[in-house]
Amino acid sequence: MGRIKYGPAQAKVTDIQSIVKQVKNGDNIGVAGFTGAGYPKAFPTALAEEIKAAHERGEEFMISLFTGASTAPDLDGVLAGVDGIKFRTPYNGDPTMRNKVNDGTSYYSDIHLSHLAQQITQGWFGQLNWAVVEASSITADGQVVPSTSVGNSRTYLDHAEKIVIEVNSWQSEDLLGLHDIWYGLDALPPNRVPIPITGAGDIIGQQTLNVDWSKVVGVVETQAPDRNSPLKALDEDSIAIGGYFVDFLLAEVKAGRLPKNLLPLQSGVGNVANAVLAGFLESDLEHLTSYTEVIQDGLLALVDAGKCDVASATSFGLSPDYAKKLNENAAAYRGKIVLRPQDISNHPEVVRRIGVIACNGMIEADIYGNVNSTHVAGTKMQNGIGGSGDFTRNAFLSAFVSPSVAKNGDISAIVPMVSHHDHTEHDVSIIVTEQGLADLRGLAPRQRSRVIIEKCAHPDYKEILLDYVARAERNPKALQTPHILTEALSFHQRFVESGSMKP
Amino acid sequence: MGRIKYGPAQAKVTDIQSIVKQVKNGDNIGVAGFTGAGYPKAFPTALAEEIKAAHERGEEFMISLFTGASTAPDLDGVLAGVDGIKFRTPYNGDPTMRNKVNDGTSYYSDIHLSHLAQQITQGWFGQLNWAVVEASSITADGQVVPSTSVGNSRTYLDHAEKIVIEVNSWQSEDLLGLHDIWYGLDALPPNRVPIPITGAGDIIGQQTLNVDWSKVVGVVETQAPDRNSPLKALDEDSIAIGGYFVDFLLAEVKAGRLPKNLLPLQSGVGNVANAVLAGFLESDLEHLTSYTEVIQDGLLALVDAGKCDVASATSFGLSPDYAKKLNENAAAYRGKIVLRPQDISNHPEVVRRIGVIACNGMIEADIYGNVNSTHVAGTKMQNGIGGSGDFTRNAFLSAFVSPSVAKNGDISAIVPMVSHHDHTEHDVSIIVTEQGLADLRGLAPRQRSRVIIEKCAHPDYKEILLDYVARAERNPKALQTPHILTEALSFHQRFVESGSMKP
Repeated sequence: MGRIKYGPAQAKVTDIQSIVKQVKNGDNIGVAGFTGAGYPKAFPTALAEEIKAAHERGEEFMISLFTGASTAPDLDGVLAGVDGIKFRTPYNGDPTMRNKVNDGTSYYSDIHLSHLAQQITQGWFGQLNWAVVEASSITADGQVVPSTSVGNSRTYLDHAEKIVIEVNSWQSEDLLGLHDIWYGLDALPPNRVPIPITGAGDIIGQQTLNVDWSKVVGVVETQAPDRNSPLKALDEDSIAIGGYFVDFLLAEVKAGRLPKNLLPLQSGVGNVANAVLAGFLESDLEHLTSYTEVIQDGLLALVDAGKCDVASATSFGLSPDYAKKLNENAAAYRGKIVLRPQDISNHPEVVRRIGVIACNGMIEADIYGNVNSTHVAGTKMQNGIGGSGDFTRNAFLSAFVSPSVAKNGDISAIVPMVSHHDHTEHDVSIIVTEQGLADLRGLAPRQRSRVIIEKCAHPDYKEILLDYVARAERNPKALQTPHILTEALSFHQRFVESGSMKP
Repeated sequence: MGRIKYGPAQAKVTDIQSIVKQVKNGDNIGVAGFTGAGYPKAFPTALAEEIKAAHERGEEFMISLFTGASTAPDLDGVLAGVDGIKFRTPYNGDPTMRNKVNDGTSYYSDIHLSHLAQQITQGWFGQLNWAVVEASSITADGQVVPSTSVGNSRTYLDHAEKIVIEVNSWQSEDLLGLHDIWYGLDALPPNRVPIPITGAGDIIGQQTLNVDWSKVVGVVETQAPDRNSPLKALDEDSIAIGGYFVDFLLAEVKAGRLPKNLLPLQSGVGNVANAVLAGFLESDLEHLTSYTEVIQDGLLALVDAGKCDVASATSFGLSPDYAKKLNENAAAYRGKIVLRPQDISNHPEVVRRIGVIACNGMIEADIYGNVNSTHVAGTKMQNGIGGSGDFTRNAFLSAFVSPSVAKNGDISAIVPMVSHHDHTEHDVSIIVTEQGLADLRGLAPRQRSRVIIEKCAHPDYKEILLDYVARAERNPKALQTPHILTEALSFHQRFVESGSMKP
């Protein structure tokens, strides 16, 4: 019987080359995939070959690519590598794609991850031509079982003219039952209703994705792993950051401002955020829950240890070891893990209602609490904002974490003014580095600057930051947010000129 | 019988001097009041006299002041005038208060208007000592009927140790029935439920505020008008801005991307935003609705003209003429106007669900779509962010509007980089000046810069902005958000040095 249990789907099984030959210059293509999980494995490489051949014939051929979030070298990488992407949204972390954005080959629009599905539905990008999704199986009644992520697949399948389904036998068939697909968000206003989630683990929808089979131009069989990048081993800095954050939360419990099992945890993607979760593993905390966008190793370890009762996300983002574990035991996670569409996993309505505790990585913060999540020196895209804005703005408590320096100390994570603003002073309540934790709740900018510098800045940068503030505060009529405009971006300018922010 | 219909309340009627003598140095005081409407008229002046006397005796005496939003000279003005405010949040527009913030006398924390109630409940500011609210009457069963605003009064009454109620006979008693107070937001997570609003006019709560009378230290009778500042007459620029915006929305209707009666309108406070509403009055649009924070003259005119079926807000903000009209006809607005607590009028959950069309004023926007709503030259507080963030982030469509120049052309509203970031590139979809409308939907930063300059910049600044972009784009490896770090804030620096942004 195999994984394609629906007759009309079996009849549509074909080779990927015959499909990608139908793609046209300028097409809008929405693909599955989030954090290198659950993305189509065959379509992108085959399309890249078509594009390369067209370019060699002197023909124009670029597409617009819409994803869940980051994908992999065999999606963003191969398409960007042949100069095949004209426009890209919403999140990218792929190095080849990044270079094409920064050198002007591709346009990149950086959108909150909870917003894109709505914008597609509102018609902001014109007609979506293709939806290309990965399935772990197709049920006997023609429903699609997603694989290791849900992302924007619900929206892409609903709005695309043509649909391609890749059934990947590398993925566990037992992923069936881990997804919760709610179709209530498809209505545009004025016809929307409340999202009926009041706890992280609430099941509100169906286990599978609906597909209009008249639009399916082909079903393709694949057998290939997700990206599954290994995480770095925990280092001292990450352990210190995780320790400060857990201690802060335990103090909030003691003060009666948080329940004993905290509130649903959100953790950004990456090594440091993953390390923060390791901090919870060492603690006495029990019956934790998580309402987040990605389930990384650290969160799965909390579930496995029985410390986290349920984790809601839109995707896995695992190391090869943990991916193997999931693949062998997927059924065991039913009831403990829920994968939702990303406009629900990240929805402001739910995040604020259930009171998420947010913890996200950053590139830099400034002395007044603004945060840069995306740009190097104000101009180069490093990666997108991802879900950090969705969670930060609406969280019960919102922390940004980073080591205090990078590049052997030549870059300070604390600067006078961030060179690109992704989260403003209005939205950031806690900053943590390996130096300490700055609690900004209820503070005015002039109070924040001293706390951030004292608690978070690296000793190599404390003096010049304090000197900057002291001189900025000499203007007796501009003391709300003291700055020296000619020096506000001087740390970045020095870095661009000399390779170091140090004077 | 009078307006105080509850026996125990009558027994607590007293003079304001005996009350303010109980206020202590360092007290946290939460007051009613939003956009100069519905704030206590007696307490602040009496307290300012106490503070002044204490200072003359050489004693320390400053308080922390929590409001709904902007108040009036006889609240912020008198207290700031005697150096009586140590800490102020969330919104201020008062000139005396502003000066005390900018000269360092007072600390000011600028918070989204939907966030403060939650932060008070979470204990971010410590114990709230006083709640001072204005009532239009007290019912026979001891419930408080708010006057022309609701603001944060529900939260302040619930959390303060001591309560003062000012019953203002200048306000219409017929305001009873215009308020909708929902207590469901008082629960902290994990016990919160969805806010059951699916349309702008939905009534979900009760008409009056609950009061624990054991905490009431006094009831004071007043008879004084709200601030009720007159609006400027519509000028050519405002009419042009309103025209562009209405034309844009009509085109969206024609393209099938908006319903014929649009979606609930939100309009920021001020002359330009008010003028935009006048644009709707001239149109053929019917059965409009509004889900906003303040009902200004323009919106009330739409209701009066039968063009707007229902308007939801947390406050009025009327000219003296319209205030008189409301006072004489308050009962006629039942069913057409709903005043809610500001954490509901501005709640992301509702704003996103019902698909608000947001239109807010700004100080400046930059060529990539970031917006400054609060600061002059990056350092001086002009006013708070207000509700613009609550609405902008979550809106179906979000516009920022401003004349393209100010101060006789010496200030450009379009700059290379805003000097303070309140709304980021991720949240701004439309910018309108009297020059035109920039539609930023789906555009990458490098595309936005040309559209914003071409459509919105004043002719006096177009060339230097285009020149800046062209030179910034010469760096072939940093083309996501091209900037020249040493010049990004040069418009502001020139203004500080020479009084003009012109070179």
